[in-house]
Amino acid sequence: MFKNSDPILLIDEQKVKKNLKRMHEKVLKSGAHFRPHFKTHQSLQIGKLFQEEGIKSITVSSMGMAEYFGGYWDDITIAFPFNILQLDRLNTLLEKQFVHIMVDSPELVDALLGKVDMYCGVWIEIETGNKRTGIDPNRIDEIRAMVEKISNDPYLEFTGFYSHPGHSYTRKGKEAVLSVFNETVSIMNKLKSQFDIEGIQVNVGDTPSSSHTDSFEGVDSVSCGNFIFYDMMQVNIESCKAEDVAVCLTAPVVSISRERKEIAVLAGGIHLSKEKMELNGQPFFGSVVLLEENHWGEPLQDCYIKSISQEHGVIKASDELLERVKIGDVLGVLPVHSCMTADCMGKYYDFEGNVIDHFSMRARDRD
Amino acid sequence: MFKNSDPILLIDEQKVKKNLKRMHEKVLKSGAHFRPHFKTHQSLQIGKLFQEEGIKSITVSSMGMAEYFGGYWDDITIAFPFNILQLDRLNTLLEKQFVHIMVDSPELVDALLGKVDMYCGVWIEIETGNKRTGIDPNRIDEIRAMVEKISNDPYLEFTGFYSHPGHSYTRKGKEAVLSVFNETVSIMNKLKSQFDIEGIQVNVGDTPSSSHTDSFEGVDSVSCGNFIFYDMMQVNIESCKAEDVAVCLTAPVVSISRERKEIAVLAGGIHLSKEKMELNGQPFFGSVVLLEENHWGEPLQDCYIKSISQEHGVIKASDELLERVKIGDVLGVLPVHSCMTADCMGKYYDFEGNVIDHFSMRARDRD
Repeated sequence: MFKNSDPILLIDEQKVKKNLKRMHEKVLKSGAHFRPHFKTHQSLQIGKLFQEEGIKSITVSSMGMAEYFGGYWDDITIAFPFNILQLDRLNTLLEKQFVHIMVDSPELVDALLGKVDMYCGVWIEIETGNKRTGIDPNRIDEIRAMVEKISNDPYLEFTGFYSHPGHSYTRKGKEAVLSVFNETVSIMNKLKSQFDIEGIQVNVGDTPSSSHTDSFEGVDSVSCGNFIFYDMMQVNIESCKAEDVAVCLTAPVVSISRERKEIAVLAGGIHLSKEKMELNGQPFFGSVVLLEENHWGEPLQDCYIKSISQEHGVIKASDELLERVKIGDVLGVLPVHSCMTADCMGKYYDFEGNVIDHFSMRARDRD
Repeated sequence: MFKNSDPILLIDEQKVKKNLKRMHEKVLKSGAHFRPHFKTHQSLQIGKLFQEEGIKSITVSSMGMAEYFGGYWDDITIAFPFNILQLDRLNTLLEKQFVHIMVDSPELVDALLGKVDMYCGVWIEIETGNKRTGIDPNRIDEIRAMVEKISNDPYLEFTGFYSHPGHSYTRKGKEAVLSVFNETVSIMNKLKSQFDIEGIQVNVGDTPSSSHTDSFEGVDSVSCGNFIFYDMMQVNIESCKAEDVAVCLTAPVVSISRERKEIAVLAGGIHLSKEKMELNGQPFFGSVVLLEENHWGEPLQDCYIKSISQEHGVIKASDELLERVKIGDVLGVLPVHSCMTADCMGKYYDFEGNVIDHFSMRARDRD
């Protein structure tokens, strides 16, 4: 069944379920609310596995994704500074789905006031070191004014403070990752303590921290996402083991260079994305595995994708792999970044060959 | 019209036509055959512009693309070592479209013999320094045996020797790029001279070489592709000027950090791809331009995308841009790699808001 002539993205549902259960139990044990981020899988069918686990709140990264998932959840957080050009789409969506949007500036709050027609939650995004979006927690007067304006709007409801400490991705190992996590939790709680408002939440939830921490103490809401599939980037951060990675790209072998000890496969940037890691000082675009009937193996030692172009992937191969491989074989690749690979591929296949949906690329610019 | 709330990929058809005419005229003047590579635009409608120019041969990088374009051309070259798992698809395609496939090993030739049911051209891919695929030109006995076997097959026809000297992408400026080009042309012609076969062709055609060279002397067939759009990578190689770049992503402004002098836009890796350049020692993911009614401006000085994640792009912004920009504005981004960006976006918009097709992502694994 892995003889598909084009690359397909395989999904191991047992691994997905295991990853989900492990994280959900840890969140529950800590008494936190789980709002898993769906930008990783972007799939209604995989979303059902979360519902079967009893999860009712989710996070997404775009209006398009919120529209795609809308209607089936208690609430959806759009974890991206609200794009004011999407006001009409928000109001339409709110008719069928309760949504939390996110703001990170007084300007954005001002632009929203009086413009939202139905009840809508609002997170204030806090910048805790990731330096992407979010307001500096020291700008306390502005944050206070934002909270006040939101609370005074007839339809906006202040939900709490949201942080994505994405700088944890630059760390490696438990201690280094948890230093980012602990610092973030501390900043967020210091901020929260300055507001005497009942029920406001602190949200944190990057996959490295969420995987490494034993407890979400001090966190009210957890929004990690990548953990559902994991990938080689997370293996490198030591958030998981390679055996936890739940998606695998199939890669037909088209050319073998025994001199250079390299294998060219049909698996390029349009399939894996161009997400790159450095491993031992070398560019790294994915691990190579062997495909078996109903699973794939562990990463082959001394085998990895060393370069990719639009459709080509070039594997640096071990002597052992070179000895057994031939043209027309299909190898497996564990991606560096599963969210990006899933987005490139646009759907999944389970081991029985069934197609599992993924939010359509085409829907991205639907207006 | 550029107030689309999601990013869209704008196309400047005047620039496309100008880029096409310039390259086509140079190829014609040299007496070479033009087989422009369609992996850049992947569009039937843009393909029509080539037909209006009198171009009848094209190049693609996958079977899916050949199927998409099939039926409208004298011949299509699939410039990828033939994926033997796609034999059935090749035979089906040959019923409506003459195709040249590519081989780069004796094993692949052996796997093809007697398996192709209709006339089909075959290029032998030669490795001239790119170290991706292709056979070493010094393996002359094996190449000779491959040519002989191809010629003796009832339906396979030996077309000639194909090279993609992609290592030109690591050079910068006319002299450096042309040293790659000239070396490749010399290797290819030395090889060709050892075969006393009438009409066999030498194909070369990367965009850096094709843009920098004044003549295609010694080249029978030219298969460059990126030149139709160009991008910031080609600007950096000095293959073109920024004003030649013919596609531009629209990027809604969602967050502004005046302290860090940064602007966050909705334009991430799922829109631009994660293709990265280094510019002045810094990571670089695209140039920033202002959008006007029917065009976009030159790249703004000291403004560029410094980092991207799945949906976020972070612009390092000049004081001048910071002064004028506000939330809800839409900026333009000239991509690092237009082929990858077009593939991510899956369609184009002209200045009148008309949609222009792009080969569907979904069709990639159609079997």
